[in-house]
Amino acid sequence: MDITFGVDVGGTKIAAGVVDEKGEILHETREETPRDSDEIASIVAMMYENAAQKYPEISAIGVGVPGLVSQNRTDIDFTANVNWRNYPLGKIVSESINDAVPVYVENDANSAGWAEFKFGVAKDARDMMMVTVGTGLGGAIVIDNKLIRGRWGSAAEFGHMRLVPHGINCACGLRGCFEQYVSGSAMTRQAKMRAVQEPENAQILLKYADSDVNNITGPLIGRAANEGDPLSIHIIQDTGRWLGEGCASLAALLDTEVIVIGGGVADHGDALLDPARVAFSAHLTMRGYRKEPKLVRAEFGNKAGIVGAAMLAREK
Amino acid sequence: MDITFGVDVGGTKIAAGVVDEKGEILHETREETPRDSDEIASIVAMMYENAAQKYPEISAIGVGVPGLVSQNRTDIDFTANVNWRNYPLGKIVSESINDAVPVYVENDANSAGWAEFKFGVAKDARDMMMVTVGTGLGGAIVIDNKLIRGRWGSAAEFGHMRLVPHGINCACGLRGCFEQYVSGSAMTRQAKMRAVQEPENAQILLKYADSDVNNITGPLIGRAANEGDPLSIHIIQDTGRWLGEGCASLAALLDTEVIVIGGGVADHGDALLDPARVAFSAHLTMRGYRKEPKLVRAEFGNKAGIVGAAMLAREK
Amino acid sequence: MDITFGVDVGGTKIAAGVVDEKGEILHETREETPRDSDEIASIVAMMYENAAQKYPEISAIGVGVPGLVSQNRTDIDFTANVNWRNYPLGKIVSESINDAVPVYVENDANSAGWAEFKFGVAKDARDMMMVTVGTGLGGAIVIDNKLIRGRWGSAAEFGHMRLVPHGINCACGLRGCFEQYVSGSAMTRQAKMRAVQEPENAQILLKYADSDVNNITGPLIGRAANEGDPLSIHIIQDTGRWLGEGCASLAALLDTEVIVIGGGVADHGDALLDPARVAFSAHLTMRGYRKEPKLVRAEFGNKAGIVGAAMLAREK
Amino acid sequence: MDITFGVDVGGTKIAAGVVDEKGEILHETREETPRDSDEIASIVAMMYENAAQKYPEISAIGVGVPGLVSQNRTDIDFTANVNWRNYPLGKIVSESINDAVPVYVENDANSAGWAEFKFGVAKDARDMMMVTVGTGLGGAIVIDNKLIRGRWGSAAEFGHMRLVPHGINCACGLRGCFEQYVSGSAMTRQAKMRAVQEPENAQILLKYADSDVNNITGPLIGRAANEGDPLSIHIIQDTGRWLGEGCASLAALLDTEVIVIGGGVADHGDALLDPARVAFSAHLTMRGYRKEPKLVRAEFGNKAGIVGAAMLAREK
Repeated sequence: MDITFGVDVGGTKIAAGVVDEKGEILHETREETPRDSDEIASIVAMMYENAAQKYPEISAIGVGVPGLVSQNRTDIDFTANVNWRNYPLGKIVSESINDAVPVYVENDANSAGWAEFKFGVAKDARDMMMVTVGTGLGGAIVIDNKLIRGRWGSAAEFGHMRLVPHGINCACGLRGCFEQYVSGSAMTRQAKMRAVQEPENAQILLKYADSDVNNITGPLIGRAANEGDPLSIHIIQDTGRWLGEGCASLAALLDTEVIVIGGGVADHGDALLDPARVAFSAHLTMRGYRKEPKLVRAEFGNKAGIVGAAMLAREK
Repeated sequence: MDITFGVDVGGTKIAAGVVDEKGEILHETREETPRDSDEIASIVAMMYENAAQKYPEISAIGVGVPGLVSQNRTDIDFTANVNWRNYPLGKIVSESINDAVPVYVENDANSAGWAEFKFGVAKDARDMMMVTVGTGLGGAIVIDNKLIRGRWGSAAEFGHMRLVPHGINCACGLRGCFEQYVSGSAMTRQAKMRAVQEPENAQILLKYADSDVNNITGPLIGRAANEGDPLSIHIIQDTGRWLGEGCASLAALLDTEVIVIGGGVADHGDALLDPARVAFSAHLTMRGYRKEPKLVRAEFGNKAGIVGAAMLAREK
Repeated sequence: MDITFGVDVGGTKIAAGVVDEKGEILHETREETPRDSDEIASIVAMMYENAAQKYPEISAIGVGVPGLVSQNRTDIDFTANVNWRNYPLGKIVSESINDAVPVYVENDANSAGWAEFKFGVAKDARDMMMVTVGTGLGGAIVIDNKLIRGRWGSAAEFGHMRLVPHGINCACGLRGCFEQYVSGSAMTRQAKMRAVQEPENAQILLKYADSDVNNITGPLIGRAANEGDPLSIHIIQDTGRWLGEGCASLAALLDTEVIVIGGGVADHGDALLDPARVAFSAHLTMRGYRKEPKLVRAEFGNKAGIVGAAMLAREK
Repeated sequence: MDITFGVDVGGTKIAAGVVDEKGEILHETREETPRDSDEIASIVAMMYENAAQKYPEISAIGVGVPGLVSQNRTDIDFTANVNWRNYPLGKIVSESINDAVPVYVENDANSAGWAEFKFGVAKDARDMMMVTVGTGLGGAIVIDNKLIRGRWGSAAEFGHMRLVPHGINCACGLRGCFEQYVSGSAMTRQAKMRAVQEPENAQILLKYADSDVNNITGPLIGRAANEGDPLSIHIIQDTGRWLGEGCASLAALLDTEVIVIGGGVADHGDALLDPARVAFSAHLTMRGYRKEPKLVRAEFGNKAGIVGAAMLAREK
């Protein structure tokens, strides 16, 4: 049996699993993400070694990280939240495990997208874009059954396509980036501001937040919306509208069969996707004279990162 | 020798040439584009037959047209300026020549891009985007030495990526499309409006236009700018700025090695490209932590359409 | 009895009336607007002389015109549709009537606003803004019972407040002006474009237009919307939304008691005003901590121009 | 001699002065602004009583505060930075001084504007707008020698006119407000973000800030710009451009003779005002057919708040 080891390095957890060639996770473990980012490599190495005792046939490691990964698939050029700049994560892990197996580093949205393409909602398609909406907004592009990493590894940074000239300031230094309109952070920021300004529309949300806007989170917005909180409903709809408009621009550039919406924010389901689909159709150029990609929700859930990273480690 | 026949169907001329495997044009002819679009197919067929008498070894015909080409590479789904909707151009030409050789239809920006990639400024690259700025704005994408046509043939419609929410109305029915800010039409529209409003800044331009704003054309704007006409200079710079900003969004999506700027508007040269490069750098996300694609001017000139169409006819 | 003569110079008709101090029209006549704008003054003079035979006690003439009126209340600085530039309309009329009575020229939106303020929906207010939405978008400002004409006569040009940077091109030479989003012209332009692009949503509208988008007019959009035409409904709502957003900016600048919406486009009634009110509230700064102006529909109808011009002729 | 007492309540200092009818400050004192805003009234009362011992003929007190002041000129409806909501500041001060003299509360931008109108750069004008650019952006409107407070006291909130749909989030709960593009806060926010992203352009600025972007302030940006720091120069120019564009919209609404630019940010002088004037002219509607207001810098300096508040206390 051909198996690989997939790791998903997140902001709070490092999740890892032993994955077979059908994308099944045979064994899974989790660790807290350490405060000191220099310790991440040794934790990954340790997780692999524990797994390798039980599964000595593991042939490669794939590590998914948030950030720009170099085209050599071992260095990290830049991460926004972890302080990595030109950081040779792959090499450090390799050394820690005495080069027992090859180590490949991937962008986490690419990993999640690859899982979705191989085994998820896009498994019957030949090409796809995936928009992963979590804390930020990431993406993956597959064309002719190949993941498109770009010349230097930074393709599919959908989150930094500009939606609005002179728009909201982005942590990347620019203004008006897609992820400032569609992301978990954007939603909670809006909810906090507006709950102060129009508390009469946010009574349910404020109840869940114990009357303190600082307690507002994405899941609370979802719960409040389900119970009819007008502000929460509006924020989800508004996010959906921007999502659809942004995807319409993507579809003008890359005419893929399907556009998959994943990430934690996609858990809002049709409350998010219905307004996204309406806006997508309304803003699709030459509509009526072209076939329209479908906007569908990812199926794979939060294991996509592990499985995708493991599967990509098979591709040389 | 392996040779093919390339045809470039434009708004005023149909240009065609016999092209060898190195992209050299061995023989070239031109016809007026007929008013009745139903006659185009028979003119193409006639041009081929004349050429085939001299070059009987022609093995295929490639026809580049402005508009959406279906993935079967024979039907045209939509053209904006010619009245073609789901029009089987390829089949009609094939019948007219008694199926002597296979006929492939391509989008004209794809054709021009392919010529540039094979023999022009991008000939040493593995991937590229080309932005063709003529009357409108079209594009081509090459990844891993392959032209990306999209699932249904409509990839690289860069001209309809939205730059400005609620922006200028586009003939495609949407608002704020890239080609409403960067195209020959956009430039002359701006020049006409502003020459009325601020004639003191457009004295040179108005002199060339015989004092009638309706005579203003792109080449006149270029000539007036060369002689210091403030309005003409500003319009070229402003167009360059938008071009650079749009390309920065493209670079966030598809991290190619090079972005080629072609089409007639690129004839403004560095007057256009210098402000484009400044704006591109200023709006490139995560700049400083990633390698930057180069923004370069196409080299091939107006024969790119013929050569690209001919070369693409070799790819099955 | 103190009576004056009010004239409303429109694009197709010149309407005039003898008006008493309570704003009642005692006598009214109409003429076609001549093609040659030099004839307008003599037609106005003739209309006055006919009226003066019956009402010799007329003490002044007020003439409302579309365009910028100088602070001397006799010259026209600029009109967009008529070819008047620094044109001494008032003096020419005065000479034609041998200086029988004084002649005052006013901006037509100021005239309509003044009628609304004196006798219409704002008659109990001390201050008001009026937004007149016809072919274009004009305005009037009243503060402390006085019409605000501005230092040089061009106050209240609401139609050219910028709503959208880099937005739709305006005939005034700028981009993104209010009247490109809220006006009869904007609505029919949108309707024509979208009816081509999404005819399935415009079946009722297209039926009324005899299947030719060039026949689409504002009243047809209203009729089609009443019968459920999705495109027409959307265009009216969208116009209302922009109207409300623009008024919210106006309310940040001039905190008046009431904002009156007049002009022919206001005939769409609550279909337009309901979305305008929603958007106005949502975009009013410091909402909840300030009193909110009311957004109300003008009551006076299309005689406002005559009455307002006549009443303003009383003010020295 | 007719003298009044003017107070300017700022974020860090309370400045007060005895002012004669010519706007001369006869006596001036300063106190720290207390952390507990409930103590402000008693400090103002104490400052008055100290002054009244020397100047018993003081006939009224004027208190300028940042925020919305009610039309009764005694209550504060809302302040953004101090926690006042419907707070009867005037009455509390009156009671503290046993109703010795009447107390009038004014918006601080109105106070500064009034000083500029009576004794500063606009002293020969009949009407004016003043745009005060400090931490935020405020304004004042004078028409026919009268300060325009609005129906409920909240006129001239220029800072919350929307410049950009879907633009930068504002503390008022809306997006795209003028003060998010033109204010001291906006400038330092931009400088911090961009100094991280493009340190090569901010070497002088970073030197002044001891290499810590958190130390960047408005005055440091000014000093660095004077020495050629490219980032600082660009930020001042960009702010000037937005300022000019916003003033062009203001000029479409209120055609005043002069637009005065005041507040601490105006200390950047022509580095700010030159690009503002260029942008103002370029975005002024119907330019060429109307007279143009002048964009001038305030002359009065930081005493304008004291003097204006004192002078407004004379107006019943």
